[in-house]
Amino acid sequence: MQKERKRILTGDRPTGPLHLGHYVGTLENRVKFQDQYECFFIIADYQFLTDHLLRIKELENNIKEIVLDYLAVGINPEKSNIFLESRIPEIAKLTIYFSMLVTLARLQRNPTLKEEIRSAGFERAKVSYGFLGYPIIQAADILALKGEFVPVGKDQLPYIEQAREIARNFNKIFQKEVFPIPQAILSKTPKLPGIDGKKMSKSLNNAIYLKDSKEEIERKIMKAFTDPKRIHPTDPGHFRGNVVFIYLEAFLKDKEELEELKKLYKRGKIGDVAVKKRLIDVLIKFLAPIQERRREFEKKQNFIKEVLEKGIENTKKEAQKTLEEVEKTMSFNYLNLFS
Amino acid sequence: MQKERKRILTGDRPTGPLHLGHYVGTLENRVKFQDQYECFFIIADYQFLTDHLLRIKELENNIKEIVLDYLAVGINPEKSNIFLESRIPEIAKLTIYFSMLVTLARLQRNPTLKEEIRSAGFERAKVSYGFLGYPIIQAADILALKGEFVPVGKDQLPYIEQAREIARNFNKIFQKEVFPIPQAILSKTPKLPGIDGKKMSKSLNNAIYLKDSKEEIERKIMKAFTDPKRIHPTDPGHFRGNVVFIYLEAFLKDKEELEELKKLYKRGKIGDVAVKKRLIDVLIKFLAPIQERRREFEKKQNFIKEVLEKGIENTKKEAQKTLEEVEKTMSFNYLNLFS
Repeated sequence: MQKERKRILTGDRPTGPLHLGHYVGTLENRVKFQDQYECFFIIADYQFLTDHLLRIKELENNIKEIVLDYLAVGINPEKSNIFLESRIPEIAKLTIYFSMLVTLARLQRNPTLKEEIRSAGFERAKVSYGFLGYPIIQAADILALKGEFVPVGKDQLPYIEQAREIARNFNKIFQKEVFPIPQAILSKTPKLPGIDGKKMSKSLNNAIYLKDSKEEIERKIMKAFTDPKRIHPTDPGHFRGNVVFIYLEAFLKDKEELEELKKLYKRGKIGDVAVKKRLIDVLIKFLAPIQERRREFEKKQNFIKEVLEKGIENTKKEAQKTLEEVEKTMSFNYLNLFS
Repeated sequence: MQKERKRILTGDRPTGPLHLGHYVGTLENRVKFQDQYECFFIIADYQFLTDHLLRIKELENNIKEIVLDYLAVGINPEKSNIFLESRIPEIAKLTIYFSMLVTLARLQRNPTLKEEIRSAGFERAKVSYGFLGYPIIQAADILALKGEFVPVGKDQLPYIEQAREIARNFNKIFQKEVFPIPQAILSKTPKLPGIDGKKMSKSLNNAIYLKDSKEEIERKIMKAFTDPKRIHPTDPGHFRGNVVFIYLEAFLKDKEELEELKKLYKRGKIGDVAVKKRLIDVLIKFLAPIQERRREFEKKQNFIKEVLEKGIENTKKEAQKTLEEVEKTMSFNYLNLFS
């Protein structure tokens, strides 16, 4: 039993390939976590149904892209488990059990959910039952694996709080410490903005993807926002909200060079184009080994399938153990009937 | 393939042993349906969780009682399938898929659910997510088996309507007639009241159970409501709301004798006690063969287990077929990833 290592659960909605924001916000950490923790990385395909039901035909390809991105950045399927939410039926059953422990009113108070309903443009009357209940499925994801740590962005904290409540509630009602109370791990890195300075996201079309070609990177960075007050390269430049410098901070490893660039920029000694060219170079170099690995994995026939199958098998084994314990604790296993 | 016979799904919440009201309202019909239809009888244990979560320890025994009652009245496990809702994981998965197709507002409009919330004495704020969503689980029960007919009481019609909507909605969104639109079969027999004239129910403590002993039957019938205006046995008697005569109508097969009794009663020629004694006799005779069979089945070791295991296995086979078709139709089966 390798249960001495604490367990991490985190993952992504399969809405498309991953971008630099994902890298800085979570992927980089995940690669590090692999040696310290027992890691389960979930591709949350039920969640895709909550708000992309009519685009379901994209889903399979999105999943492939994400697995390739995971492997490319260094998530190692020998160390960690990558799995699909919908392939673990125990999660669906736990969702039903947990749904008896959460009031409707409690779900409706979730601030992130409210915000998502707003930003998805749903009319209140058209919110589906499944959309409202997604925090319960997410709790089932975490608790099916007895996840102890959940690396998330700050906006996801209300979901973790919901999972914690469910865990506490279950343990209390059935008088047994079945579930650990999961803890969020917040990334210390500030969020990477999109090239327009807004939140980096697929829907805003402002993201740089891990798989972007040199040409795409060049095209996007040349459009990136810098200092709107600077008209001529000789004007003094500012850094606040300056996307190009935010990216340089994140990806230029040579901190002396970075300080030098900033100094020059501030004094109007270097133009936007020159700084952008430097950034393009930095990003291409940063992404080169990732993309090289991606190509290798793409070539390996059946590899994604094998990675997922292994991840699903391992996850299912753990989820089955949890479900058995849950049903036993609830006296919902009918031991006298069936054994 | 025996798919030529149409399929029926119906069942019970495992809240305790079954009573005469169940017999008249549904069990009698189920026994007849067995030859004409392919029958699936569900013991809805998820539903027990929605409003009896804290009494979960009674559940296992309740299930045994129900299976014994089924067998005793003549449900034949060679012809029909008796299964437990929670043992079919496909139902939990379908519940998640269907929950994306139903708005919260739609669920909140369900009149029977509103009534159940009221009669369970829940404060609105304390209604659990699972309680509100139970009509979706019920739709998953029916549709997992592609149930074509659902024998129910009138109060259950809003649930069938919900299942019909989900079936239509799914077929329309995914452009394939995956689900038949299930139809309710309403029992023609009027509801049998409890001995106090109210709805026969366990919680009102006014039910006569199929397994009640002679002494219990006698005790209960002697307390049964008759004609409140009649003080002396020689007063003319009335039949409206007269529980003893309602029961005689249902269980006294000799209709001439029934007419004779009514005539005498109306004219004040026969007392309540005499009529009650006749009814006690009728009920004991009616229940004798049922109870005799019950005792036989109780003696057979492992029989309940075998009945349930076979029912669950058959049901699972059908539910798996449905789930496969559902996921294929949704493009949610990842065929290119996994095969």
